[in-house]
Amino acid sequence: MEQDTKKKALRAITYGLYVATAVEGEHYAAGTVNWLSQASFTPPLVMAGFKADSGIHALAESTGAFAINTLAAHQKDIAQAFFKPTELVDGTLNGYEFEAGPETGSPLLLDLPSWFEARVTDVIKKGDHSVFVAEVVSVGVRYPEAMPLAMRETGWSYGG
Amino acid sequence: MEQDTKKKALRAITYGLYVATAVEGEHYAAGTVNWLSQASFTPPLVMAGFKADSGIHALAESTGAFAINTLAAHQKDIAQAFFKPTELVDGTLNGYEFEAGPETGSPLLLDLPSWFEARVTDVIKKGDHSVFVAEVVSVGVRYPEAMPLAMRETGWSYGG
Repeated sequence: MEQDTKKKALRAITYGLYVATAVEGEHYAAGTVNWLSQASFTPPLVMAGFKADSGIHALAESTGAFAINTLAAHQKDIAQAFFKPTELVDGTLNGYEFEAGPETGSPLLLDLPSWFEARVTDVIKKGDHSVFVAEVVSVGVRYPEAMPLAMRETGWSYGG
Repeated sequence: MEQDTKKKALRAITYGLYVATAVEGEHYAAGTVNWLSQASFTPPLVMAGFKADSGIHALAESTGAFAINTLAAHQKDIAQAFFKPTELVDGTLNGYEFEAGPETGSPLLLDLPSWFEARVTDVIKKGDHSVFVAEVVSVGVRYPEAMPLAMRETGWSYGG
């Protein structure tokens, strides 16, 4: 395949931006991701692509759970903050306050407009990212009027 | 889970719109889908959620291949045309011309700005839609300047 064409064709896929989180004991992982989609209504499943060598991959796999926090249109700076390694500082993750999710304990970021927690049902490891299929087990909406952040509006891309 | 909250939280995921296609002998399937994401760079994998009782699910599973045709921002009418059952009429699919993909023979719609063909590596059947993980094996871009159609711009939603 011609690499420029591959990049162009795969970057035509439309994405949002989310902060994926997980926790195991004192270890926290929180990273900005975009490879995410619902995958079933009943049961409510999602599928996510997590980088094989990432903290979120490690903890989502070992604990069998993660949370997705959806970024709002004006929260590009928060997306950027979670490109960096995860640091627990003064009870915050990379400077952002959180609470433990009710079902899995996964960190829920208080500034982000909505979230869900999910329990992993399958992990398919075939590439530099793995496919996590997971059942949504709890949900929350903090700011119902917020518009989600679309990748295309940021000028960034991750894919190709 | 409270159903309205679940709907709101899951509809915060950002999607594009695509026509997924497959063929087996004289049988064609072409349907508008939105549950699609890349899932690895190397190898280039994608993941798609196909409705369990759909034609595209049946043919993608039996042949192990499908194509994704990305809709352009002005092609909401084409998205709508492929909500309907697939009909081969005068050599068109639901009225739209196509050619056979070079690697898998899956139909490529000539009016759509870009496409890729993929070979299925895994199918996870846990819900009313299945997760198809597939390796991208060929790509094409017909209209490089086209902007992809975003689900949120259509006023439609599929998720929740």
